[in-house]
Amino acid sequence: MTEFWNDFPGINEALGRVQELIDRAIQSNNRIIAEGLGSLFGGDGKLLRPGLLLIASSFGKDQEEKRFPLAAALEILHTATLIHDDVIDNSPLRRGLPAAHEKYGQKDAVLIGDFLLSRCFLLTAQYTSPENAEYLARSISALCSMELEQDADRFRSSVSVRGYLRKITGKTALLFSLACHVGASEAKAPPPVTTTLRRIGYNLGMAFQIIDDILDYTGEEDTIRKPRGNDVKAGLVTLPLILALRRDTQGELTALVGQDTFPHSDFNRIIRLTLELGGIEESYRYSQGYTRRALGEIESLPPGKGRTMMEKLTHKLLERTA
Amino acid sequence: MTEFWNDFPGINEALGRVQELIDRAIQSNNRIIAEGLGSLFGGDGKLLRPGLLLIASSFGKDQEEKRFPLAAALEILHTATLIHDDVIDNSPLRRGLPAAHEKYGQKDAVLIGDFLLSRCFLLTAQYTSPENAEYLARSISALCSMELEQDADRFRSSVSVRGYLRKITGKTALLFSLACHVGASEAKAPPPVTTTLRRIGYNLGMAFQIIDDILDYTGEEDTIRKPRGNDVKAGLVTLPLILALRRDTQGELTALVGQDTFPHSDFNRIIRLTLELGGIEESYRYSQGYTRRALGEIESLPPGKGRTMMEKLTHKLLERTA
Repeated sequence: MTEFWNDFPGINEALGRVQELIDRAIQSNNRIIAEGLGSLFGGDGKLLRPGLLLIASSFGKDQEEKRFPLAAALEILHTATLIHDDVIDNSPLRRGLPAAHEKYGQKDAVLIGDFLLSRCFLLTAQYTSPENAEYLARSISALCSMELEQDADRFRSSVSVRGYLRKITGKTALLFSLACHVGASEAKAPPPVTTTLRRIGYNLGMAFQIIDDILDYTGEEDTIRKPRGNDVKAGLVTLPLILALRRDTQGELTALVGQDTFPHSDFNRIIRLTLELGGIEESYRYSQGYTRRALGEIESLPPGKGRTMMEKLTHKLLERTA
Repeated sequence: MTEFWNDFPGINEALGRVQELIDRAIQSNNRIIAEGLGSLFGGDGKLLRPGLLLIASSFGKDQEEKRFPLAAALEILHTATLIHDDVIDNSPLRRGLPAAHEKYGQKDAVLIGDFLLSRCFLLTAQYTSPENAEYLARSISALCSMELEQDADRFRSSVSVRGYLRKITGKTALLFSLACHVGASEAKAPPPVTTTLRRIGYNLGMAFQIIDDILDYTGEEDTIRKPRGNDVKAGLVTLPLILALRRDTQGELTALVGQDTFPHSDFNRIIRLTLELGGIEESYRYSQGYTRRALGEIESLPPGKGRTMMEKLTHKLLERTA
């Protein structure tokens, strides 16, 4: 399936089935959907959320078939939010390919995202307990609500670390946590294990998103598959910039973004100063904090194949920092 | 509640409860959602779909409380699609009030629509059978798919009557039909009655949307609460124009819109010619056909309060043609 999961026994094969289910769920007689959607699920998607769900489900006693469609539902949901996010951020690339709205126009991108949301709900209605369907719906509400805050804070240099952490909870950690919860609870894992897995998902998601935001400052376009400085150009004040502003005793960076809005500032200088002031270094400390917490929770899981994979996944996601 | 339902015994009171449930379901700690959503549900919404669901549920033996949250879910879904539609059509007014995207920007409007979709799914996960949750999800998929076709046909004068009818199925008839189906089947109405009600919803929805499209050509802005000619300016080729083009033996209208795209044409002249060529009159014949079919199906329903209300509703919706 994807290289990322090569050394996770069984997961790659299972993700192959998940991918088949995704392909089937997004089929449509509609020409635009039929032509467009396949490629949106291509690119360099790692199927992280489905993988997480599958690992979490291995802690339960019920190894039912339904974990595959549920993993598919989560990836479809994730892609729907990406498509709508890209409309919102006006981002040109996604997974190394043109974003949906660049290819089909903003209008169709909204509808394609809605179509995918409905497919996600269809799969959950078919395969989850009503409790988990509820849990999923609530997670999406929270996710939208947190995204709306992010949009309100665009081009606002006064964003707090706390505000930032709340936003990435909605953007990433909630879905990671949801993947673990749904996987474990549908497989009837013991409730305390499900709770632990949900926390692991949360911490992993937080660490992962911070690293993602760091890469927007440091990554090579070849690796991150999108233009560097994409976020800051879109007015997204992420952790590296927030932390750099705190250390900006000379006031140089503050002068650039301190007008509360900075749509006309020199983005390359903002990026350079953020690095020089140590905003990247300190951001890594945050991501490492979450990773440590995830590893601590993982230690408390019952030993076995599932725990080993969860550990390996955590290290692998942390490796992206290198 | 709303004047529209004044002479439907019991419905107005029931819709009061539905409105309370809507208000509760869309509550949020998020400032933008909290401030924004109330007003989006205000304006001159008639709560047609919830009313239809309530009438349909009166044909069942189970008069459970859950019909209220389900009616709320349908209105929330309808509002979500309106918000996304208005982003897509760039329409300035909705229900006589500024459209969401005019008030909050396109970006927030996408997220507010997603938030509402998730609230609709939450209510259905809580209150419907999994079968009806599935039915709802499939309806939304179909709705998005048909909307995408509408968008692809924008500014294309070659739209066929058949293509148009397919599009308004997605835009309106599907949700009317869904309201009847969910109301009747959750109240455990006999399956043949549920099927008949679903067909009534479909025919009513078709008639209703054709009249709506006619009003875009003939309505006073005071009545339709949106600028006249809104659709044609947005490039939507609806039934009056399609039928007028067929009768355009002189070729005057065809010359205006016949270039396949007509974004720079004289819209007032298009509207005037559509009227002169009888496109409106013939469109009414279509809407009357659907209304007749609805009334025919209504006659086959078991007699009683529900059937009387369904008849009254059909006549009332047809009166809009006057």
